[in-house]
Amino acid sequence: MSEPTVSEQPTHLPSRPRELAQIEKWWGEFDVIVVGFGVAGGAAAIEAARAGASTLILERATRGGGATAMSEGTIYFGGGTRVQKANGFDDSMENMLAHVKAAAGPTADPEKVRLYCENSLDHFAFFESLGVEFKDTYFEEKVIFPPTDDCLIFSGNEQSYPFSDEAIPMPRGHKPKKEGSAGGYIIERMIATFTELGGTIQNETRVETLIRDGHGRVVGVIATIEGEEVAIRARRGVVLTTGGFIMNRAMVERYAPDLAKCNFPIGSEGCDGSGIRMGMGVGGAAINMSEGLMTTPFFPPVGHIKGIVVSQQGQRFINEDCYHGRVTDAIMKKADGVAYLIVDDETYGQSMGGYKMVAVEETIEELEKSLDIPEGQLVHTLSAYNRFAKEGVDPVFHKAAKYVTPLDHPPYAALDLSAGKSVWAAFTLGGLDTRPTGEVLTVDGEIVPGLYAAGRASAGLTRSGSHYASGMSIGGGSFFGRMAGKSVAANPAVDESS
Amino acid sequence: MSEPTVSEQPTHLPSRPRELAQIEKWWGEFDVIVVGFGVAGGAAAIEAARAGASTLILERATRGGGATAMSEGTIYFGGGTRVQKANGFDDSMENMLAHVKAAAGPTADPEKVRLYCENSLDHFAFFESLGVEFKDTYFEEKVIFPPTDDCLIFSGNEQSYPFSDEAIPMPRGHKPKKEGSAGGYIIERMIATFTELGGTIQNETRVETLIRDGHGRVVGVIATIEGEEVAIRARRGVVLTTGGFIMNRAMVERYAPDLAKCNFPIGSEGCDGSGIRMGMGVGGAAINMSEGLMTTPFFPPVGHIKGIVVSQQGQRFINEDCYHGRVTDAIMKKADGVAYLIVDDETYGQSMGGYKMVAVEETIEELEKSLDIPEGQLVHTLSAYNRFAKEGVDPVFHKAAKYVTPLDHPPYAALDLSAGKSVWAAFTLGGLDTRPTGEVLTVDGEIVPGLYAAGRASAGLTRSGSHYASGMSIGGGSFFGRMAGKSVAANPAVDESS
Repeated sequence: MSEPTVSEQPTHLPSRPRELAQIEKWWGEFDVIVVGFGVAGGAAAIEAARAGASTLILERATRGGGATAMSEGTIYFGGGTRVQKANGFDDSMENMLAHVKAAAGPTADPEKVRLYCENSLDHFAFFESLGVEFKDTYFEEKVIFPPTDDCLIFSGNEQSYPFSDEAIPMPRGHKPKKEGSAGGYIIERMIATFTELGGTIQNETRVETLIRDGHGRVVGVIATIEGEEVAIRARRGVVLTTGGFIMNRAMVERYAPDLAKCNFPIGSEGCDGSGIRMGMGVGGAAINMSEGLMTTPFFPPVGHIKGIVVSQQGQRFINEDCYHGRVTDAIMKKADGVAYLIVDDETYGQSMGGYKMVAVEETIEELEKSLDIPEGQLVHTLSAYNRFAKEGVDPVFHKAAKYVTPLDHPPYAALDLSAGKSVWAAFTLGGLDTRPTGEVLTVDGEIVPGLYAAGRASAGLTRSGSHYASGMSIGGGSFFGRMAGKSVAANPAVDESS
Repeated sequence: MSEPTVSEQPTHLPSRPRELAQIEKWWGEFDVIVVGFGVAGGAAAIEAARAGASTLILERATRGGGATAMSEGTIYFGGGTRVQKANGFDDSMENMLAHVKAAAGPTADPEKVRLYCENSLDHFAFFESLGVEFKDTYFEEKVIFPPTDDCLIFSGNEQSYPFSDEAIPMPRGHKPKKEGSAGGYIIERMIATFTELGGTIQNETRVETLIRDGHGRVVGVIATIEGEEVAIRARRGVVLTTGGFIMNRAMVERYAPDLAKCNFPIGSEGCDGSGIRMGMGVGGAAINMSEGLMTTPFFPPVGHIKGIVVSQQGQRFINEDCYHGRVTDAIMKKADGVAYLIVDDETYGQSMGGYKMVAVEETIEELEKSLDIPEGQLVHTLSAYNRFAKEGVDPVFHKAAKYVTPLDHPPYAALDLSAGKSVWAAFTLGGLDTRPTGEVLTVDGEIVPGLYAAGRASAGLTRSGSHYASGMSIGGGSFFGRMAGKSVAANPAVDESS
């Protein structure tokens, strides 16, 4: 999670394509060129290669990985996977669809949601076909991801109000069998699989420009290899799987002002919007560009979920047991970016976020005063919370019973969850408008011929920070990457003489 | 404020231009064509004509007016207008700028804000030059607009926290001297002025298509006059002043989901996004498209501002004395669209919104129960409010002292302000990206030659429902309309033989 160096600071502007007529010679020719080797690119390339297309992956870094390799590797599967069944979770496709429809929210593409859920078991099998292993175990505690090599977790809003009312809550976060983070492991299996299929990987290769023919079709890319600019032809099409734009400050400020307030970009150096800008440069529409996943992960420890999150007015505003990204989104939008986690001596624990403890007091009255919350506000909030918590209920924001206990063991502490005051991690969710096939659409709703996108370079499965779950980026990126790979491989090849 | 008829339901898609080469004959030729005669179009046309350009206005309806003529006609002026001075308000350009900078919010274009404030006295003089009269009177009560022919009101957030801390609060809403609504009067003065200048107005003329030459320059329009499609040449350029898109259901649903929840579109039939779609069709970028002004005008009576607005959780979430649009925006975004105005016997009055009184009770406990608010929440909110109100303060949300009195005269009533349950009026604030000169920009930040936009067809002075004031649409639309008119008139004419 590094900042790009100053010399690389990209603009927010679309990247103009090169015209085919200007190309004098080709460095190489392939059926399919995939730009960017994260999970979406790997999935696209593998499906294209399996369909018999000669496929080239161009990767900017020294090795494939992208943001996927920096992640924990959780994948959102359901509908009754082997791991779900082994742990007694009787999920169905219909139940998964009911949940994801609600949980992905009103801005999601219903067709992408449907396809994703209907094909989830097949998608699980795809990962197994790469040699990615999943242990048949369930990690029960609410975590961001299992620290062990265990697999299954509740990784989203399944058990949280109001989503818990929409479908039977089932865990669907599947982490591959690997201690700690497993994203790199997924990519290594993809590299091995793609190589076995005879695919070509060209690392340390930068792509900033598409090549377009006189009919507006994308027919290749301009790449920089060892300092030299070369043209590479793509007979069937180019797939952009270059990631989002969180590392591009100019784009973040222009398109996503809330994300600009987050101090911890989640992504690799390549997440600078290069693919989105190339797509825009040939007429692709960029949509949902203001959206992103923001998170200040105030748990684990799980005790913190038993705390309450309050605004500067001393009010709660969300059930604290939601997906951490949903809580964070609410802090930004409902509490104007200022919030405190209030815990007592029993619920407090060391957190990974390194939150600043801005007040510790023996009484809530003193805590309220220390936080400069208007008199009586926090006192009311906590006493009302505690009164119902004794009965194990939260009638105001509907936090699940297992996280509802009275906070009545002094001292009381406040951890500062405010934007800019603690770790606020973020990545972007907006990108190129695509059909489920990966075909990039113009603002007119027409296809840009020869151009495909998947992963965070596109607007994918979920497009809103309030409606996200861990595993949807790798899950959605790889699923729609596969669809793009199949589509591009089936796209008629351009006659080379044209 | 009528619904478009079914046969006219437009799509959300950009309108493709006609190529110049396809044009066989011209119905007419002008230096400047202005499409749409609301206040922005009138201002553009008058400035173009004053600069000596032969100018044609094409208006869809039987007479100019647009959304302006349906409005009360408030114009946001400051910096020490004659009316401000006559009423003892010592405003300055710097003070106005300090306020508008804060009040227009982070999404505003700082250059537009600066120009608007620096030239406000000149802009007041422009309206006087049209023969628009302003009475030297101040209407003190907080109203949506004066029902009389009085002029000056506080029409925005000047006196409301946090904006009251940013600049010395000054009233800047100026309504022309006319009983009730004055929008039509402004337009009539514009029609008279433009006609005196020798300008041409062609009413009952629909424009859905621009004409573009081989260099990508906009050189005219296709218009439908008396059922016949004709081509009209614009030697210096075309100005789109066609209004926003609130009447275009497909656009509202695609771009502005919050506005889709509002049941009362503010605009004329022409506010169907035709200009935005034409601009997009020649590469213009449409920005801030999700934004709009939403309002459920729960006052007058002014007593209602002394009430409290609470969520379904029984919490307040905004100072109720803000601009009504800002309160409404908070209801949508912070309270998920569900809110009640709680009043007592002293503060209740008949409102124009026709709000449904969903509960009347002798005690707050009973009211809370009737509203299905979790036990104790509303009781706390009101008792805390009343406790401080006795001292005339609101330390929680900082409502101004003059609206802070204890609510302790039963019976208590709740008026339903929820979206879909009462009048929620809305218009759009997103549109074509323009320079202050009105030049339309592409997503690349380049100018579309020959094309200008102003008013709600463009993203103007303010671009967010939480940061708006009455008078900014007519004020900003006319100001940037004038700038567009001056710019287009100064644009070199295209050689007709080209």
